[in-house]
Amino acid sequence: MKNFTSLKDVDKLEKLIQSGLSLKENPLEHISLGKGKTLGLIFFNASLRTRLSTQKAAQNLGMQTLVMNFDNDGWKLEFEDGATMNGNTQEHIKDAVQVLGQYCDIIGIRSFAGLKNLKEDYQEKMLSHFINESKVPIVSLESAIRHPLQSLADLMTINEFKENEKPKVVLSWAPHPKALPQAVANSFAEWALGAGFDLTITHPKGLELSKEFTTGATIEYDQEKALEDADFVYVKNWSAFDNYGAIIQDDNWTMTEEKMELTNNASFMHCLPIRRNVVATDEVIENEKSLVLEQANNRTYAAQAVLKTILENE
Amino acid sequence: MKNFTSLKDVDKLEKLIQSGLSLKENPLEHISLGKGKTLGLIFFNASLRTRLSTQKAAQNLGMQTLVMNFDNDGWKLEFEDGATMNGNTQEHIKDAVQVLGQYCDIIGIRSFAGLKNLKEDYQEKMLSHFINESKVPIVSLESAIRHPLQSLADLMTINEFKENEKPKVVLSWAPHPKALPQAVANSFAEWALGAGFDLTITHPKGLELSKEFTTGATIEYDQEKALEDADFVYVKNWSAFDNYGAIIQDDNWTMTEEKMELTNNASFMHCLPIRRNVVATDEVIENEKSLVLEQANNRTYAAQAVLKTILENE
Amino acid sequence: MKNFTSLKDVDKLEKLIQSGLSLKENPLEHISLGKGKTLGLIFFNASLRTRLSTQKAAQNLGMQTLVMNFDNDGWKLEFEDGATMNGNTQEHIKDAVQVLGQYCDIIGIRSFAGLKNLKEDYQEKMLSHFINESKVPIVSLESAIRHPLQSLADLMTINEFKENEKPKVVLSWAPHPKALPQAVANSFAEWALGAGFDLTITHPKGLELSKEFTTGATIEYDQEKALEDADFVYVKNWSAFDNYGAIIQDDNWTMTEEKMELTNNASFMHCLPIRRNVVATDEVIENEKSLVLEQANNRTYAAQAVLKTILENE
Repeated sequence: MKNFTSLKDVDKLEKLIQSGLSLKENPLEHISLGKGKTLGLIFFNASLRTRLSTQKAAQNLGMQTLVMNFDNDGWKLEFEDGATMNGNTQEHIKDAVQVLGQYCDIIGIRSFAGLKNLKEDYQEKMLSHFINESKVPIVSLESAIRHPLQSLADLMTINEFKENEKPKVVLSWAPHPKALPQAVANSFAEWALGAGFDLTITHPKGLELSKEFTTGATIEYDQEKALEDADFVYVKNWSAFDNYGAIIQDDNWTMTEEKMELTNNASFMHCLPIRRNVVATDEVIENEKSLVLEQANNRTYAAQAVLKTILENE
Repeated sequence: MKNFTSLKDVDKLEKLIQSGLSLKENPLEHISLGKGKTLGLIFFNASLRTRLSTQKAAQNLGMQTLVMNFDNDGWKLEFEDGATMNGNTQEHIKDAVQVLGQYCDIIGIRSFAGLKNLKEDYQEKMLSHFINESKVPIVSLESAIRHPLQSLADLMTINEFKENEKPKVVLSWAPHPKALPQAVANSFAEWALGAGFDLTITHPKGLELSKEFTTGATIEYDQEKALEDADFVYVKNWSAFDNYGAIIQDDNWTMTEEKMELTNNASFMHCLPIRRNVVATDEVIENEKSLVLEQANNRTYAAQAVLKTILENE
Repeated sequence: MKNFTSLKDVDKLEKLIQSGLSLKENPLEHISLGKGKTLGLIFFNASLRTRLSTQKAAQNLGMQTLVMNFDNDGWKLEFEDGATMNGNTQEHIKDAVQVLGQYCDIIGIRSFAGLKNLKEDYQEKMLSHFINESKVPIVSLESAIRHPLQSLADLMTINEFKENEKPKVVLSWAPHPKALPQAVANSFAEWALGAGFDLTITHPKGLELSKEFTTGATIEYDQEKALEDADFVYVKNWSAFDNYGAIIQDDNWTMTEEKMELTNNASFMHCLPIRRNVVATDEVIENEKSLVLEQANNRTYAAQAVLKTILENE
């Protein structure tokens, strides 16, 4: 594995999942693997659990981490080839990426969707520049349209709790007061289909995700019907793809205990942080079938499995 | 010791002090104790020496540290049970604390008094939520009303320099241009009394501390009288408890060499940073009897003794 | 070596350069040297490559690093002796420096020129206070008028690529849309002359650097004439010394391929970040004779050589 930015970078998904679960059992088994190696973590958007879990993963492998936080104004990068940089941009992306590669053996980067320019977001502009210009491996810490470390942790969690080989997994849209990217939903669909699960996606009309991610899934606009026989219910808000970035409020879509009773005693999943009693009720989140803390815990070992695979392939 | 948030958490005070002094002699003796363990340091208020000394303490024990800085606006936490989180709050405190516990083996947290709502501050709202929700040990890096790591370092310092078993210790209020919390003063009183010292507290009328912390101490409104026979003089500003948070300016209370001469050749103490020539004069701060740098130095070993005790009790 | 703040601190320049190049070959050879030691990095101005390369250097020596970022408003230091600190300043520089020395074995500090007060900048006020007050070694991470870690990396790079003992090195001014400090140019001149190179400095009239740094160099106002027979061309903007801090725009001074053809097939150097097609054209920067990435890479080993020398002299 050279980079880790989407499911396409993963040769053997099942092996990667098993590697994560094995590291969870014995986190320090490979503590010498990353000796003298440095992981650079570049955040153009705020991070809490992604930073902590990835730093912890690196530490468990004996790697050092260097964290760089840039808000949108902090480091004005130029993206245009041939630009005369006589304005606000301070450094060309191709210089920046190559310099970072001088100090880091692996680079992790987070850059969210702006939710203003659909085409630009779906080109994953920032991530693509890093992939193209970097001589060292790139790990996505959530790009404009994907969050693969979250998806890997989610699949590890399903693997731990599933009771049959091809569980029915439902991805259900939920309301939220702010416009959120589609990255977690896109990525979960991509990975759940890649793992061969029976995936149903349910949401109000007008909130269709890109077909790039949903081909192979069943789309069902009736949430209650979608939930029938579900083994896992993954709830997540995303903002509109058509009428890009629009917020759609529909409180009927909040996940409740009543709705969970329609399932096959399904486990509840969410990537956190969660707006309680908006996305799902307290009862659902605190139910013994809720896996949200398991998912958060698995973030460390998902990142560790990815870093280990990259380090070993060097 | 499960948590370290007040003197009440300490089983054997003398043993903890001696542990700190022993670690000062040989800081790296237990460098394998924290191997593979992570200390999370969460700051809702700025920190310089607390962060540095606690990180150094953790490093001396072989622990990794993960630092999170949040100003008051950076991470909008919800505290109310059952809230419908359709507004500004992004994450419920009970989810946040449990998630942090997934990545950290010990959590340190700093959250100052707001100095606006007496009752809320004295309930130590933020710290209490962390204690209640966390499955991993909590260490206070200064709460609304206590600063126990400072107090432990202060007691270690007194222990090093005291010439009799029950020294006379005077805590003297000092002027300051800003409203400061009562945490350092409260905690010093709590710990000095806990150590069995002869504690006199002196301040202008109207600046009484909470009796929760001062019971057992002599209150003396005449500063010069209070200083007689003192072996240690701890100077600190705090803002009013009645008329909560009010700033009281009284330059007569600045500690001077003349006043120090009234004592039993007392040592001068302050937790730093200090407003020179407001809280105390340059001459007092730079006098050979000044212990301010010793106190700062002992912060590392106080934190190290606490972390060591927690790690060993696991 | 006690401190590292200018060429004057270096006893044996050639030995320091060779130490850097040797560490580049085997970065982890001395990983036990810094065990249990802490490097504090204090930034009063933003840093990317200096922080990363210095942290990596410390890690390669087994040292821990503690990073402190303060913008100009974050930590109000008092510099005046005897001041009554009843205003905005929170801590006296002499207390701050001594406290930091309690937690760090070496202190690195960055504080740029303000470009408003020539005299104050050229006194290197902040750095001087650190040197005067600190009991632990001080390393400059770029002061108001010098950037010695950059210069050491630059000399290492020239050393790797030079084909004769006394290469002709040209330091050429370049346009830039903002007022920049003279630190990199001053320091490069100081070190290139110290290494015994044949140094020519070229710039428009009115942009003379301080004679403190340029004595021994040839000053040539005709850029094309200066470039004749050059082996290395170091391009850098600086703002005016007379009419201090003024921005001078002169696009005729941009480094181009045509100008590089006037040289003895010279290598191109710049400290990065670089304003492309303003300071130099894309073709020059991306030419196989461009050493900019080598310079960036050598920053790590320059810092490591300095830290190693300081640690061994203890």
